Amino acid sequence: MKIIIAGAGAMGSRFGLMLHQAKNDVIFIDGWQEHIDKINRDGLEANFNGEKVVAKIPTYHQEKASEIDFAADLIIVFTKAMQLDHMMDCVKTMIGEQTKVLCLLNGLGHEDIIEKYVSKDHILLGNTMWTAGLEGPGKAKLFGDGYLELQSLDENGEATAEKVIAVLNEAKLNAKYSHHILESIYRKACVNGTMNGLCTLLDSNMADFGETSAANQIVLSIVNEFANVAKHEKVELDSKQVLEQVRSCYNRDTIGLHHPSMYQDLIENHRLTEIDYINGAIVRKGKMYNVPTPYCAFLTQLIHCKEELLDAK
Amino acid sequence: MKIIIAGAGAMGSRFGLMLHQAKNDVIFIDGWQEHIDKINRDGLEANFNGEKVVAKIPTYHQEKASEIDFAADLIIVFTKAMQLDHMMDCVKTMIGEQTKVLCLLNGLGHEDIIEKYVSKDHILLGNTMWTAGLEGPGKAKLFGDGYLELQSLDENGEATAEKVIAVLNEAKLNAKYSHHILESIYRKACVNGTMNGLCTLLDSNMADFGETSAANQIVLSIVNEFANVAKHEKVELDSKQVLEQVRSCYNRDTIGLHHPSMYQDLIENHRLTEIDYINGAIVRKGKMYNVPTPYCAFLTQLIHCKEELLDAK
Repeated sequence: MKIIIAGAGAMGSRFGLMLHQAKNDVIFIDGWQEHIDKINRDGLEANFNGEKVVAKIPTYHQEKASEIDFAADLIIVFTKAMQLDHMMDCVKTMIGEQTKVLCLLNGLGHEDIIEKYVSKDHILLGNTMWTAGLEGPGKAKLFGDGYLELQSLDENGEATAEKVIAVLNEAKLNAKYSHHILESIYRKACVNGTMNGLCTLLDSNMADFGETSAANQIVLSIVNEFANVAKHEKVELDSKQVLEQVRSCYNRDTIGLHHPSMYQDLIENHRLTEIDYINGAIVRKGKMYNVPTPYCAFLTQLIHCKEELLDAK
Repeated sequence: MKIIIAGAGAMGSRFGLMLHQAKNDVIFIDGWQEHIDKINRDGLEANFNGEKVVAKIPTYHQEKASEIDFAADLIIVFTKAMQLDHMMDCVKTMIGEQTKVLCLLNGLGHEDIIEKYVSKDHILLGNTMWTAGLEGPGKAKLFGDGYLELQSLDENGEATAEKVIAVLNEAKLNAKYSHHILESIYRKACVNGTMNGLCTLLDSNMADFGETSAANQIVLSIVNEFANVAKHEKVELDSKQVLEQVRSCYNRDTIGLHHPSMYQDLIENHRLTEIDYINGAIVRKGKMYNVPTPYCAFLTQLIHCKEELLDAK
């Protein structure tokens, strides 16, 4: 299958490498020149579960994507949420009648962006539990196992989606079809929509936050706003169940001592956050459905204040 | 006049000293043993507008206040908000038929506490623009000018209040009667209810916060909650006018580069904050009047999280 990885960061590198190893025709599109040059010169180098692997995958700068002659069967987008629209615009010349777009980004509402470029029956929305890290330009660290689930936005799209799933599974990516992908995406967004913003704002790891007296009340208020919005998209979220899922992040023996990714982005590296695509998306959807979302609104505003105070780029 | 200063911190020291200089019979009640011992041994020492002043003012520990034989005409309370109830309990044996209680604390709802000890017609609620600092045990720094306004909680109480005002003015404290003290208190609480919590949470001075894109929206949301609650207490706050008052804090040429007092308490000195008596009071009153106050609620919860994370005492 001819596959574009649009956004060759950590996760893009994992998917690209595994699909390349399974003999697919893979190319990378990215915006980081040093990374692009390194891969084109020396290949993508990965520490793949402890083994050094090098893969020669053609890599192009997104601003030159329109010059590429590549009739993609599948585009997997792996950008930061705020870069999705521009990336889609860059790769649109490679989109044909046959092209499916698979979106595995965290956060909510990405389908609205992608629909500007392809119709619903070409869009696969997914959720992945794979992880990945980037150690420098052209150098990935890929440990552990994972899986993904995906669903076509078209209710008759399951058969087409199964072809993509077969390709992903040949590459050992453990994909399966879901009939409730929005629910999975909302659940994950609830975890991100609480841990990310709150730990970033409070300069705290997840366990320390979770052990404060107000933690449960705050998390429940935010999760309720997600649930009230989700109802309007025919997704029933059980707030108590989601609360339990969030609370599992507090465990000091597993991930509790970690800072969530937004903390790393903003507090450690002064990078802009994806808050507009998590809590901010709930605020936008809330306005549309006439659902009050004050906790999500205030949290989004506070994170934007913090971005400006830290001069995040 | 026989006057108890209940809480001899910075502001208590100012009022105590000036009333003592005007020949009133003043005693201090406080909870800080080192401070009490120093004043009893060497007197209260003040840098009073550049001049060194020493005043011998009898000073007692609050836990021993019940042993004091002192029929107070006036008690001026100057504790931290969270210590008010306990202080009133400590000094209650010195309260007689003639005793008025003047409360000049920042924040809202202190009258509900004081009413547990004296009836409405004995309570004077006030608002002061005097400032003061404490440099160490028994040592105050008192610069600049100020004023205060006060009102009796009893609608027929103005005549009685005027006697207290006369005593305060003999001591050059620039007091006057107000018929709208709740409005003044609410206005000041709006400034504290925005600058204090927000700058503390965002680790920012007032100017830097004020220059973020979301500042106005956040401040307006909070001020609107104060205004909606105030309406139920017959106080009409003009949100736009209050917003202007808050915005004056952003001025880099005046006070904008300062951190508000809550920041100093919590972030610099790891002390518990008065958030429950500012935004937290709006949440309690909001519940009583059935007015939604999500911004005040979330801000109060976040500050409590921060207190616990910093192990504030």
